[in-house]
Amino acid sequence: MDEPIRVTVWNENFHETSERDGAAMAERYPEGIHGAIARGLGDQLGDRVVTRTATLDQPEHGLTEEVLEQTDVLTWWAHMRHDAVDDAVVQRVQDRVLSGMGLLVLHSGHFSKIFKRLMGTSCSLAWRSADDAELVWTVAPGHPIAEGVPHPIRIPEQEMYGEYFDIPAPDELVFLSTFSGGEVFRSGCTFRRGRGRIFYFSPGDQDFGVYHHPDIQRVLANAVRWAAPEQRSGREAPGLVNRKVPDFVGATPNAEVAR
Amino acid sequence: MDEPIRVTVWNENFHETSERDGAAMAERYPEGIHGAIARGLGDQLGDRVVTRTATLDQPEHGLTEEVLEQTDVLTWWAHMRHDAVDDAVVQRVQDRVLSGMGLLVLHSGHFSKIFKRLMGTSCSLAWRSADDAELVWTVAPGHPIAEGVPHPIRIPEQEMYGEYFDIPAPDELVFLSTFSGGEVFRSGCTFRRGRGRIFYFSPGDQDFGVYHHPDIQRVLANAVRWAAPEQRSGREAPGLVNRKVPDFVGATPNAEVAR
Amino acid sequence: MDEPIRVTVWNENFHETSERDGAAMAERYPEGIHGAIARGLGDQLGDRVVTRTATLDQPEHGLTEEVLEQTDVLTWWAHMRHDAVDDAVVQRVQDRVLSGMGLLVLHSGHFSKIFKRLMGTSCSLAWRSADDAELVWTVAPGHPIAEGVPHPIRIPEQEMYGEYFDIPAPDELVFLSTFSGGEVFRSGCTFRRGRGRIFYFSPGDQDFGVYHHPDIQRVLANAVRWAAPEQRSGREAPGLVNRKVPDFVGATPNAEVAR
Amino acid sequence: MDEPIRVTVWNENFHETSERDGAAMAERYPEGIHGAIARGLGDQLGDRVVTRTATLDQPEHGLTEEVLEQTDVLTWWAHMRHDAVDDAVVQRVQDRVLSGMGLLVLHSGHFSKIFKRLMGTSCSLAWRSADDAELVWTVAPGHPIAEGVPHPIRIPEQEMYGEYFDIPAPDELVFLSTFSGGEVFRSGCTFRRGRGRIFYFSPGDQDFGVYHHPDIQRVLANAVRWAAPEQRSGREAPGLVNRKVPDFVGATPNAEVAR
Repeated sequence: MDEPIRVTVWNENFHETSERDGAAMAERYPEGIHGAIARGLGDQLGDRVVTRTATLDQPEHGLTEEVLEQTDVLTWWAHMRHDAVDDAVVQRVQDRVLSGMGLLVLHSGHFSKIFKRLMGTSCSLAWRSADDAELVWTVAPGHPIAEGVPHPIRIPEQEMYGEYFDIPAPDELVFLSTFSGGEVFRSGCTFRRGRGRIFYFSPGDQDFGVYHHPDIQRVLANAVRWAAPEQRSGREAPGLVNRKVPDFVGATPNAEVAR
Repeated sequence: MDEPIRVTVWNENFHETSERDGAAMAERYPEGIHGAIARGLGDQLGDRVVTRTATLDQPEHGLTEEVLEQTDVLTWWAHMRHDAVDDAVVQRVQDRVLSGMGLLVLHSGHFSKIFKRLMGTSCSLAWRSADDAELVWTVAPGHPIAEGVPHPIRIPEQEMYGEYFDIPAPDELVFLSTFSGGEVFRSGCTFRRGRGRIFYFSPGDQDFGVYHHPDIQRVLANAVRWAAPEQRSGREAPGLVNRKVPDFVGATPNAEVAR
Repeated sequence: MDEPIRVTVWNENFHETSERDGAAMAERYPEGIHGAIARGLGDQLGDRVVTRTATLDQPEHGLTEEVLEQTDVLTWWAHMRHDAVDDAVVQRVQDRVLSGMGLLVLHSGHFSKIFKRLMGTSCSLAWRSADDAELVWTVAPGHPIAEGVPHPIRIPEQEMYGEYFDIPAPDELVFLSTFSGGEVFRSGCTFRRGRGRIFYFSPGDQDFGVYHHPDIQRVLANAVRWAAPEQRSGREAPGLVNRKVPDFVGATPNAEVAR
Repeated sequence: MDEPIRVTVWNENFHETSERDGAAMAERYPEGIHGAIARGLGDQLGDRVVTRTATLDQPEHGLTEEVLEQTDVLTWWAHMRHDAVDDAVVQRVQDRVLSGMGLLVLHSGHFSKIFKRLMGTSCSLAWRSADDAELVWTVAPGHPIAEGVPHPIRIPEQEMYGEYFDIPAPDELVFLSTFSGGEVFRSGCTFRRGRGRIFYFSPGDQDFGVYHHPDIQRVLANAVRWAAPEQRSGREAPGLVNRKVPDFVGATPNAEVAR
């Protein structure tokens, strides 16, 4: 794909605008978590990517048909307001994923409606907010998402996310995280659903500036490239097909098929 | 597990009771599709199984909390009335699957609410009603569900189900079907979700007496045994856990752990 | 399977008989590692299992055609003498696995000829001998091998095995281990090869009495039950088949197939 | 990767040079099977690929250290002379795959030493030479290897390859083939081994001009792009690592890690 990948970075934008967390977030993420993620993608990918952002409070959460039609990869960060997301928008995003749009689900997005719907499980996990150090280990060293990533990535402070993480077995397990307390988490997982590619990546709590970490930015940039569909327009979700004519009818001789 | 496996055989029981199909169904399946499936399991497994049946028209579709609590494996056949299934019952069945109950989804059950919810995809496929012959090939010969099953199973007449079948990549692909028209279908697929095991098996259209076929009965009996949970009571779905205490604290020396 | 599972417990039996380690091993494992594993299986499974042991120094390493023909599950522990294993015996074991015999590869057995041959990769890993504590976490809670196993298993002292572990992506990932030093390891992995089931399980260094740990014994017992083939005799490896007659020829009508 | 992908197309070149088949092959494949494959890649990928060919009869079968060091993707066609391939070359190719070189194994290459070694299974299958028509169905429509490929691909005449195909469960199943006789085959399979990506693709018998078929050429071109490593030089196979220092030592505060 020679044209730039069109990424929409979505954020519930709650911590940033809340009375309780607003000041700290403004210090940590002056442009919001969405701003930091978008900036990191730009730093990593340059003109191979164009980003826009969208937030919960916008009409249709900023995820209109038009926006999604022009989105190759959607990233999803949310934590406190999962229930406020309109079911119609969730349905729309699911349809787009099945049609081929890439989806990156980040950190506490594990409990979003869209992730739970695409997984079919509870997506519950174990957690602890205690400034654990986190190490992110690569277990699929030939995977494009792991390209150029140190082994391990070292994140000095981070919320602990631990097993059991109630997801389907990932199609590909790319990263595993450990925490100071001894816990483990399947922190980088790919899933194919319909024509779409999904990547869940857990590092990224609102209380730590993880999205400024260059290795984390590298992972997200790699994931955007991996998740982008080959075909940029006219993508459709799989549907019911009545194949009325048996497919063995009317075969053409080899000689005529070849040029 | 030494006690018998408790199976609940569910059927929408629509074709059997409809004006259009009732007479033909009474000839083909005098006890209904549910009756035939239950009988087949009894023939194959004897006293290793106890079956009950439940249907759409019963209160709570016959799937009360009490019934599900006492069900090790649920089988699901439906075709025309998917939308009539109460969302609360679907949620209840999903919770039980995540808690460890086995689930067999049969034929047109691919479009049931419960299957689509557990898969997260459209579950659409290609089809043709034209009396194709179907061959069912084993591609996991060491799998318990394939034990004692001929290669291929030959089904003289059957509705064609073909790819693309919009499901997540199965955890294990056990059977592939071909049809006279040249189509192919992933006809026997396992999925783990939460603590539960799911098996989708496609042979079994209402217009053909496929559930009387001894090889098909054998597959269903094998699948019931495979899907039954080791633990029969007190099963719970995975949930959110706050591990407040780091897990490396307070380790006991090896000598004290061992007997 | 109502008859007891026939397990052959294989050990290179080198540390036990070496001048350097013999005395410590006699204290830790008076019956050898093979004796401890066999005893643990007996304690857990009672009359559902019969065990025998075999060691490197025996003729054909104790793994004659007759022994393997009567073995449902083989367990493999080795560390220092991988190269001393006869290639003909390795070939024989591989053939039996493809024919349906279960195989449990334990700890440093990751570098055995038989495991490397069945995996097709280098099977290399990271390691450190420094008395790390190990925690073994379940990531497939509905898997038979995890039945009744605490989350996590706590092993006070153990050699560290860490990623990257160069194996094919496991068919099922059952356990993940963490270590005091912060490392992670895919410590419980299943693989299907031919008709056989393979389970790799890493806890079990010769310097620690891990095989006396009741939770570890439980895992091994569960794994033996999972790996045992349904069919006990006449098992054959998959082979080349010339299907001279097209399979759609000569289909029998449904009515004649059903009883 | 902006530089062209360097592909080495390997062929045993036996049918082309044999007394029995030479004349027919010269008609069907004037440049040999290797020439046709290389030409098809060039037609599809233009200046995004550079190809060279190598054959069995060359010194070191044309696969010297230098050649492999400069190869991003190796394709392998062989049928009659598997045993004539030097074990040292097989070892060298395996090492390069584990180091990240892509490998495409084609048709009867399923029985090559390199494929059997990387799979760890017998790689046996069912077959019939009877001019069956073959249909190639996509079961992973979002996979890069399926991009732009019709559903199904229609191959008028081809040798039948059928199940059971004794391979490990593929990491990704991309294509399934059906044949006039009713058989089925997992004809497009991906495997990750070490840092390398492997694609097996079955259409391509020497008796039919399948490599002139534009859809088959498209699959091979897609597969070359998918299998090419991100990193072109300095690739190394995974190896044993002694991590003497626990990884949780010496963590740096978040503020210092971030730019």
